[in-house]
Amino acid sequence: MAVITGVEVIDVRFPTSRTADGSDAMNVDADYSAAYVELRTDAADATGAPLGGYGLTFTIGRGTDLVVEAARQQAQRLVGRDIDDLAADMGALYRDLSGDSQMRWLGPEKGVVHLSLAAVLNATWDLVARRAGKPLWRLLADYTPEQLVDVADLRYLSDALTREEAIEILRAQQPGKAERIAHLERDGYPVYTTSAGWLGYDDAKLRRLCQEAVDAGYGHVKLKVGANLDDDVRRLTVARDVIGPDRRLMIDANQVWDVPQAIAWTRALARFDPLWIEEPTSPDDVLGHAAVRRAVAPVGVATGEHCHNRVMFKQLFQAEAIDFCQLDTGRLASINEILAVLLLAQKFDVPVCPHAGGVGLCEMVQHVSVLDYVAVSGSLADRVTEYVDHLHEHFTDPCVVADTGAGTGYVLPHRPGYSTQMHPESVARFRFPDGAFWVDDGAISAQSPARPAVA
Amino acid sequence: MAVITGVEVIDVRFPTSRTADGSDAMNVDADYSAAYVELRTDAADATGAPLGGYGLTFTIGRGTDLVVEAARQQAQRLVGRDIDDLAADMGALYRDLSGDSQMRWLGPEKGVVHLSLAAVLNATWDLVARRAGKPLWRLLADYTPEQLVDVADLRYLSDALTREEAIEILRAQQPGKAERIAHLERDGYPVYTTSAGWLGYDDAKLRRLCQEAVDAGYGHVKLKVGANLDDDVRRLTVARDVIGPDRRLMIDANQVWDVPQAIAWTRALARFDPLWIEEPTSPDDVLGHAAVRRAVAPVGVATGEHCHNRVMFKQLFQAEAIDFCQLDTGRLASINEILAVLLLAQKFDVPVCPHAGGVGLCEMVQHVSVLDYVAVSGSLADRVTEYVDHLHEHFTDPCVVADTGAGTGYVLPHRPGYSTQMHPESVARFRFPDGAFWVDDGAISAQSPARPAVA
Repeated sequence: MAVITGVEVIDVRFPTSRTADGSDAMNVDADYSAAYVELRTDAADATGAPLGGYGLTFTIGRGTDLVVEAARQQAQRLVGRDIDDLAADMGALYRDLSGDSQMRWLGPEKGVVHLSLAAVLNATWDLVARRAGKPLWRLLADYTPEQLVDVADLRYLSDALTREEAIEILRAQQPGKAERIAHLERDGYPVYTTSAGWLGYDDAKLRRLCQEAVDAGYGHVKLKVGANLDDDVRRLTVARDVIGPDRRLMIDANQVWDVPQAIAWTRALARFDPLWIEEPTSPDDVLGHAAVRRAVAPVGVATGEHCHNRVMFKQLFQAEAIDFCQLDTGRLASINEILAVLLLAQKFDVPVCPHAGGVGLCEMVQHVSVLDYVAVSGSLADRVTEYVDHLHEHFTDPCVVADTGAGTGYVLPHRPGYSTQMHPESVARFRFPDGAFWVDDGAISAQSPARPAVA
Repeated sequence: MAVITGVEVIDVRFPTSRTADGSDAMNVDADYSAAYVELRTDAADATGAPLGGYGLTFTIGRGTDLVVEAARQQAQRLVGRDIDDLAADMGALYRDLSGDSQMRWLGPEKGVVHLSLAAVLNATWDLVARRAGKPLWRLLADYTPEQLVDVADLRYLSDALTREEAIEILRAQQPGKAERIAHLERDGYPVYTTSAGWLGYDDAKLRRLCQEAVDAGYGHVKLKVGANLDDDVRRLTVARDVIGPDRRLMIDANQVWDVPQAIAWTRALARFDPLWIEEPTSPDDVLGHAAVRRAVAPVGVATGEHCHNRVMFKQLFQAEAIDFCQLDTGRLASINEILAVLLLAQKFDVPVCPHAGGVGLCEMVQHVSVLDYVAVSGSLADRVTEYVDHLHEHFTDPCVVADTGAGTGYVLPHRPGYSTQMHPESVARFRFPDGAFWVDDGAISAQSPARPAVA
């Protein structure tokens, strides 16, 4: 018997706003942060080291403390639970943690309490995979179709996807699993880079980073747009000039437009042949995305990093609102809800290209994309997963992106878990507000809850 | 000059779960609670008493502390601000408070940080109305169309409602304002009662409360449904038996059904001639509500208490998904966002019947419904606002519902503000966890963040 003996949830913030990393038209000063959950147990892993579970959700500064406190309250319910009992029925655990009706009122299934649930469940899935001695993608790929559907949250989806249909989708991909895994072992999972195109970078830095992306073998590059149309035209001209006509270019507006403006602006940039316009408007606007998509074709529409739950994705699919599904591993409630979205996407034939970047998202999405290919969709067509080259040095099992000869891709992760354990030194240094970085820096006020009032 | 000198945000919880008040198919043990905001100033009101602002959002127990902390952080930005400057441009204040991109990431515009924003802005609107010496509905009814549109948040709405259209809607109602106010002074604003129909009440209590509603002059009664179909048939039989065939009966499922189940269950209850089925499925499911509406007509579809922002309401209207708009004064970001929804509803010709009950919601919705009639829709057709006879004794200016001869209605409020100040004694007694009630009761553990784990 192995039991969860304790939980700690930590507010970790990195000062990324100082270099304009992560800057876009909506988020001008993001300090990449995490509500980081550590589960402790009385067990050891195969190497004899203490067995733990490590998970997070991604935030961008102020308010991370709110998510931390919510996760602390939710995770308390894990203390004293038998790990193997949990592992045997992760669907029951999901329903237990998400079913607290008093906490549910604060969403439901959205906002702070859903982000925190993601962090807690991500840590639990990490623990369960470590206990099994497998990387999470492998643990899940080894499940039967019925076992996978048992952990998926299909509530509110039956008008679009029944349990029986979900099982059929998974059964159809049972043949060929081993071949697909071998393919990924050889070629990796296709990625694109956003590292070049943050809005706060000047043209010289943009040009240099685009060239570096080309040199590194990337076939796709993404740029932020939406603050100023003339600037966008100039920056896209630079990018196209460097990457040439054949590599794919994506643009991302981070929700700054109303629907009519999104249509006009995207049309004005269409001559740069973007593969997709990402987050053209409010992430809640299913019908708005559908209207944009109808108006800007053949430019595709992509969204999902702020799509707060499976019910919203269901509608994006039903309304034929998107060409690419960019689910987020810190915003959806972990594997349980992600599985539901992967299944819906397969039913509606929309490729899943997960959102990543931030802190730890790349570490997680590699597992999700691999699972999608191996067990759910069986396809790499039109799939390309985001990669941003920031902050991986803080993780004990960082994702690896390499040019495999078949293009640049995520190298298949092999170590047990969900790849989301941070180095204890990183956590100690960047925990907010008492980590050494923030104390030494003396810059707490810039991050403190009370922004200076506008004069 | 009058300045906001301080802010206090308090976690107030009432032990309503002990009597099954507020029980429904989703929320079985609601402890009606509030994140309660007090703004202090260096000014006095017309009576010479200290001028303050008091506002809240409604929650149901655990997690109220999260909303309190979020509101505390947001409200800090008010300290030091000149009240008259704020009052002159409440649209700017709204954009300032809602525009913190780091906090926005945690929604956006939904969940804990949006509930807390509602509480902070509700307190500010209360303060501004008190400063003007007017009840809030009157302050707003006295605004010009341009002034009202300036405070409304129309972002992301321009595909459905332009600024010019909004001004036209308001201009059309300028004539007749005085007559409509006089009408309400005489007859009150029409209400219905939910006090009879909580799911946890037995049949004898249900029968008695329905009879009391009839005796009190109510023309509408609402019952909770959705836990068990046989029980629902039995309870609706009791209710119809008491209220007769002519009074209106509404039913409320509180989100427990998937779409196909909502259709089947509502059809099974259609013989009781419900005016509407409320919250038949996930509040996020715009297209699901539209499907239910098409399938269960002539039973109407109502939703809104969990509709988290104006973008969701826009889509409910665009998709012709609802017959009644039940916006919530604690979930939308106060008057600024409520005005946008009132304008949209008028554009799409959907009656607004606000959600109330809980703590303080009735106190607020009377102002909103009066404003809707006087300045936005100019109509009482198909309008009826919720009233629940709980917890009003804790407010200094409680709403009053009376049989005016023309039916039972909210009596027009006349005292300055938004009617949301609680008695200091109530706050002191029920503040959580250190108020006298909770300390004396020794029952903190039942409400504490850590629910006992399922064995």
